[in-house]
Amino acid sequence: MPLPPRRNQRRVLPCPGSDMTDPKTKPSAPACAPAPEGEPLGPITVEVTRGDLVESRHRAAFAVIDPAGRVVLSGGDIARPVYARSSAKPLQALPLVESGAAAAFDVSEAELALACASHTGEPRHVATVRAWLMRLGLGEGDLECGPQLPVHHATLLDFLQGGGTADAVHNNCSGKHSGFLTLARHLGAPTRGYIRYDHPVQQRILGVLEAMTGLDLGAAPRGIDGCGIPVIGIPLGNWALAFARLADPHDQPEARQAACARIRAAMTAEPFMVAGTGRFCTRLMQATGGRVVAKGGAEGFYCAALPELGLGVAIKAEDGADRAAEITLGQILRRLDVLGDGDTALLETPIRNRVGLRVGEVRPASEAPF
Amino acid sequence: MPLPPRRNQRRVLPCPGSDMTDPKTKPSAPACAPAPEGEPLGPITVEVTRGDLVESRHRAAFAVIDPAGRVVLSGGDIARPVYARSSAKPLQALPLVESGAAAAFDVSEAELALACASHTGEPRHVATVRAWLMRLGLGEGDLECGPQLPVHHATLLDFLQGGGTADAVHNNCSGKHSGFLTLARHLGAPTRGYIRYDHPVQQRILGVLEAMTGLDLGAAPRGIDGCGIPVIGIPLGNWALAFARLADPHDQPEARQAACARIRAAMTAEPFMVAGTGRFCTRLMQATGGRVVAKGGAEGFYCAALPELGLGVAIKAEDGADRAAEITLGQILRRLDVLGDGDTALLETPIRNRVGLRVGEVRPASEAPF
Repeated sequence: MPLPPRRNQRRVLPCPGSDMTDPKTKPSAPACAPAPEGEPLGPITVEVTRGDLVESRHRAAFAVIDPAGRVVLSGGDIARPVYARSSAKPLQALPLVESGAAAAFDVSEAELALACASHTGEPRHVATVRAWLMRLGLGEGDLECGPQLPVHHATLLDFLQGGGTADAVHNNCSGKHSGFLTLARHLGAPTRGYIRYDHPVQQRILGVLEAMTGLDLGAAPRGIDGCGIPVIGIPLGNWALAFARLADPHDQPEARQAACARIRAAMTAEPFMVAGTGRFCTRLMQATGGRVVAKGGAEGFYCAALPELGLGVAIKAEDGADRAAEITLGQILRRLDVLGDGDTALLETPIRNRVGLRVGEVRPASEAPF
Repeated sequence: MPLPPRRNQRRVLPCPGSDMTDPKTKPSAPACAPAPEGEPLGPITVEVTRGDLVESRHRAAFAVIDPAGRVVLSGGDIARPVYARSSAKPLQALPLVESGAAAAFDVSEAELALACASHTGEPRHVATVRAWLMRLGLGEGDLECGPQLPVHHATLLDFLQGGGTADAVHNNCSGKHSGFLTLARHLGAPTRGYIRYDHPVQQRILGVLEAMTGLDLGAAPRGIDGCGIPVIGIPLGNWALAFARLADPHDQPEARQAACARIRAAMTAEPFMVAGTGRFCTRLMQATGGRVVAKGGAEGFYCAALPELGLGVAIKAEDGADRAAEITLGQILRRLDVLGDGDTALLETPIRNRVGLRVGEVRPASEAPF
């Protein structure tokens, strides 16, 4: 029984004294005081069953935010700084478009989707990256993401049986890195070292993140992602705000509005390029035909832009489990009437044993606050 | 600063009115009333860092119990029924030995360790299973565990590059299933269907679980494991009691005392056979030379018998994360002075990005109750 979204007046974002609708006025991160360490990050949202028992449970914080920073729906601590990991990719691709780099280098819709992707290393992903790099006058050796084997199981088996070994072009981030290289070329910056925090590419991205999250991020906590680029600690509510603005960027400069529209269009037109066969991101965008622009990230993160509703969603599983973030997103989308009860494949995941028998499921928790 | 174990008089096990030191007197499961659903299963014990932030956190319930059922150390809800998954394997191997089946079929120390294993499918594991099945007059087709690819990465690459496909002998449970087949042959029971709850092999195991956990399990919650056999829901404290009795079975019948001694000896003499290269179980038993008999299970479970201290340990991560159960076990063993501060490799796990740079770690949480 999903309820319609309530637009109450609570604004965790912006904090008192700041004006989140004006991207030039930015409070320091974190925007609001996070809950004390040791408090649960959020309520139990997902349970994992096996036979007669719930075997495991997951907690998650979640925020549904509108472009003015109003909280439509939330649970848990949405003020604690968290890394979005690969969920930030659609935001990290904005400078590629708004700088004119994508147009200058004829970046296609499929390539742009791949710039926002954690791809599974399937042949079309890899061929597209290779062709893109060649058009830049660059090669696989210019990718600084490090080597990885294909994630997609059947592709992996073929690849290994053909004598393949881990390489940078199969890295799930190779599309994002191709986008970074394109931007570096367009800015006239060195391509070498484009993953470093102080490189013009990463600094340009940081500026866009500031505008989209409404925060000054110069002193934000940070770390290094699996693919070598900086990750920035930002309150969950502000990640949701950034995705609300991706959905509805009316308060952003014109070039950014156009860039947001192009990224939404690319990701929803090419959901396979954003992830791959069988992946939650891909299946969700295939099933919702433009109504959801979704991107998962490592350690149990998920973000989504909902263009029809003008809302952004961000989810962080306390324990870092991807299965928790996925099923929590499904619940939120059902709560917002974006998914219906019939979208079973997006609302729960069967657990099968090694002979294929269904022995349990990952599903919304009975105590989930939805 | 590990503290010596305290033997207080609190006995969560046995419950009032039962006598847990007498295996013939069994209360119904669950032994004590579990905490209400929705309560955390246990405190935060493990944190996952990246750069400036703690990125994810794990909660776990844990129990350290002596053979009389006294609680030496515990955290969280140790009365809620939980599945031990593969952590139950050393207990499931007891009937193989105490029935005389292992002696009748000349089961070696390495084979017995493999009967208690979740092995990584490395060549020595697979060759040992094949030779054992042949000695029984059986073959891979008699294994009902289902197909799996080798877990060990380098073995997997070799296997796939040689054209290998998933099969039952590479299933991480193939040693346990070979033990079941050995017991079926010895009992004169059909080998077919040995994974079923009502098969004599599984019923024999259920009886031993009852004696070791001190519970009547006839009406216990149950489900089906990844390899097809029954899993039984038992309170965490009673799993720890079973491992305390594995460590010190003085209150058990003579044949079981001898079987416990043989299983302890086999697992600690052959730690590679219990798991494989690089695995936590294997590294822990290699590092502690007989002082720890440890076995992990899926969905964040760990059990250990500590023969020198006469204690049993059981851990369940609320969210099912194996990394949480491993690091929690390390903390408990340091608390009990079984590990020292110098055992860094068992107390935390580095997180590296794809070019090998250390970017974070899985480590004891700052708020862990140790």
